[in-house]
Amino acid sequence: MTFTKGVTPSTEKYDGSSLRVLIVHTRWNCEIVEALVRGAKETMTSEYNVKSENISIQTVAGSYELPFAAQSLIGASRMSPQSFDAVICIGVLIKGSTMHFEYIAEAVSQGIMRVSLDSGVPIVFGVLTCLNDEQALERAGLGDNESKHNHGIDWGRCAVEMGVKNTRWMSGTI
Amino acid sequence: MTFTKGVTPSTEKYDGSSLRVLIVHTRWNCEIVEALVRGAKETMTSEYNVKSENISIQTVAGSYELPFAAQSLIGASRMSPQSFDAVICIGVLIKGSTMHFEYIAEAVSQGIMRVSLDSGVPIVFGVLTCLNDEQALERAGLGDNESKHNHGIDWGRCAVEMGVKNTRWMSGTI
Amino acid sequence: MTFTKGVTPSTEKYDGSSLRVLIVHTRWNCEIVEALVRGAKETMTSEYNVKSENISIQTVAGSYELPFAAQSLIGASRMSPQSFDAVICIGVLIKGSTMHFEYIAEAVSQGIMRVSLDSGVPIVFGVLTCLNDEQALERAGLGDNESKHNHGIDWGRCAVEMGVKNTRWMSGTI
Amino acid sequence: MTFTKGVTPSTEKYDGSSLRVLIVHTRWNCEIVEALVRGAKETMTSEYNVKSENISIQTVAGSYELPFAAQSLIGASRMSPQSFDAVICIGVLIKGSTMHFEYIAEAVSQGIMRVSLDSGVPIVFGVLTCLNDEQALERAGLGDNESKHNHGIDWGRCAVEMGVKNTRWMSGTI
Amino acid sequence: MTFTKGVTPSTEKYDGSSLRVLIVHTRWNCEIVEALVRGAKETMTSEYNVKSENISIQTVAGSYELPFAAQSLIGASRMSPQSFDAVICIGVLIKGSTMHFEYIAEAVSQGIMRVSLDSGVPIVFGVLTCLNDEQALERAGLGDNESKHNHGIDWGRCAVEMGVKNTRWMSGTI
Repeated sequence: MTFTKGVTPSTEKYDGSSLRVLIVHTRWNCEIVEALVRGAKETMTSEYNVKSENISIQTVAGSYELPFAAQSLIGASRMSPQSFDAVICIGVLIKGSTMHFEYIAEAVSQGIMRVSLDSGVPIVFGVLTCLNDEQALERAGLGDNESKHNHGIDWGRCAVEMGVKNTRWMSGTI
Repeated sequence: MTFTKGVTPSTEKYDGSSLRVLIVHTRWNCEIVEALVRGAKETMTSEYNVKSENISIQTVAGSYELPFAAQSLIGASRMSPQSFDAVICIGVLIKGSTMHFEYIAEAVSQGIMRVSLDSGVPIVFGVLTCLNDEQALERAGLGDNESKHNHGIDWGRCAVEMGVKNTRWMSGTI
Repeated sequence: MTFTKGVTPSTEKYDGSSLRVLIVHTRWNCEIVEALVRGAKETMTSEYNVKSENISIQTVAGSYELPFAAQSLIGASRMSPQSFDAVICIGVLIKGSTMHFEYIAEAVSQGIMRVSLDSGVPIVFGVLTCLNDEQALERAGLGDNESKHNHGIDWGRCAVEMGVKNTRWMSGTI
Repeated sequence: MTFTKGVTPSTEKYDGSSLRVLIVHTRWNCEIVEALVRGAKETMTSEYNVKSENISIQTVAGSYELPFAAQSLIGASRMSPQSFDAVICIGVLIKGSTMHFEYIAEAVSQGIMRVSLDSGVPIVFGVLTCLNDEQALERAGLGDNESKHNHGIDWGRCAVEMGVKNTRWMSGTI
Repeated sequence: MTFTKGVTPSTEKYDGSSLRVLIVHTRWNCEIVEALVRGAKETMTSEYNVKSENISIQTVAGSYELPFAAQSLIGASRMSPQSFDAVICIGVLIKGSTMHFEYIAEAVSQGIMRVSLDSGVPIVFGVLTCLNDEQALERAGLGDNESKHNHGIDWGRCAVEMGVKNTRWMSGTI
């Protein structure tokens, strides 16, 4: 028996026009990160009407910094008229010769989960954890592989969906 | 010596007629997820008298979103006349070529544990963590394998049991 | 050089006659779990004078539910004249063909640690994490292996020791 | 290029004469544990002037109990005129045939980290995590291996250093 | 397709002249640690105008102590006119024959993440987790390997960037 691999889009058409979204990304393997950020941003603006001026883009050096930056920026946004409705953390980790990859990946995946639960703001885990360069290129929609797909597109969709849903849930609507 | 593998049902016949239950599931590998959700819902309504209108079903894109959604929806239900007595988080993770599977699985299993302990609402861990497609189909009661069994059935039973027991425990009855 | 493998009993003879203890166990692989529970209960009553009526035994479906049940039952006991002095969580996890074993084991070992530190009630980690059926039988004192030993006996002893010691420590006695 | 492997002692000569220290250790593989405890205690008294009557030694059955005991004993010491300035948790884990070693080791290393950060009392991680008996003997300064070294000595030094430094830091001195 | 491996510096030129930074490092494999500390300190003073007297350098014995020391020193700095704007934790872990490396590395990477999120002070993870001596030398800019690069330089840059950015974010500027 076969089945649909991958994610099925929601049947609901989310209206992102009132959302404020943060993308915080690293500056490692930057062509790949930039493609992912572009995919996320373009999806949000073109498919969901998120206003370009409502998408803040911030950078940090590496993936280990992502959870802290997300927490601090969420806090900063709470001092403004509109706090962030959703956050996307984007990074590209590629396995090297030490165990660095493993410990950074574990800390950032746990850290982002912690910050989203602590803050009550949904954070999309947009950190690729690849074993080689080709896998990373493929998942950013780059390179020659036929099955390439820019995951940033999915992350943009997810951010809008979670931003819209969480706004409802926070007002008591299920 | 042999012994009974798998779970032995409780001897007590739980009455789910006053329970309110949330099922939040992903939209990855959706035929499998849908079979699991069906198994959970039908078990709760047909075996335990949970009212269909008291089962809320919500979706998120992927497994990483499950803990956040559970926390937010539990909060939403607390603004209503009846908060959720139990939650089932359902997703299907299948190992791919990167390390994504490992980091998502670890974060979601820890995240769901955190949310249930933080909120005091029992959450059933209904996330399959399979190494290939066949294992996933089998555990959703699909495919050709003779030993196939829909784990959603067990999760529905578990949700009712934990919902009933936790209601007792919260009132001081042991 | 050789040395004593395994645990050396304490030189102190603990008096468990005023302790109230909770055993919460799963219903997976139930003959093994029952042997472990029996080992723990009989050790506490026969070696340490814990009163049978002061040992509460509760069940849950699977190991993932153990931390939540322990937390909720500890809370319930605090509404009674005597709260639990110690808890034993008992389960039997045996590696299967997916990664389920790994993620459940990690979540429950971390979850029980969290609940004991959060609550200030010592919780014995009585969850076997075996690679095959024979290892599980052996550690419940079942089967034919000469080196078989019912770990429930050790867990019962540990529960009494920690219950007695923690009562002292909580009153400031070191 | 070569470099100094292992730890270089601090250039500062710490005065441990006013410190109160707790050693809590398990009773598994007890000759090894006892050698480690002896190494720690003798180092603190002979090299750093820690008063023997200011070193409390407590036991628990196994390594999983160490974080709870440390937390509870720190609390007990806070009801006395002098609370513990540092704690050393000592245990010997040796890989067996199940996955028990892995889950206990992970829980205790995370648990001790949690208790030290929660309490503000430095806790030395003195739990050996060995793959076989020989490694354990070697690290307790026992057996025939030329490179044997009692790690308890390092843990005693570390406890004094952290106790002295933390006392300064808590008063605002950097 | 090729892409830029490694980190791309920020386009912004950060002014570190008003920052106060803490470097806390271990005393294991000390020539390597010293090179890393030197790289971090010199980068901060020469590239970003951090004042030498505003860089505090503290030591601990081993990597497991780093999170505790960071937390305690951050607290100490809060009793002074200027608290730390950023922290760098530096250590060198090299895989040995037991499982010590794995459990220390996991605890310190999770511990530093926890302390930075708890305190609201960015902490750079400057702990090398190498499989052999050569990898460690290379990452401290030592030895003969052509691709050697002192990671301390990157950590110094990261500390200044995060210190400057977090100061902005804390005042509500995004």
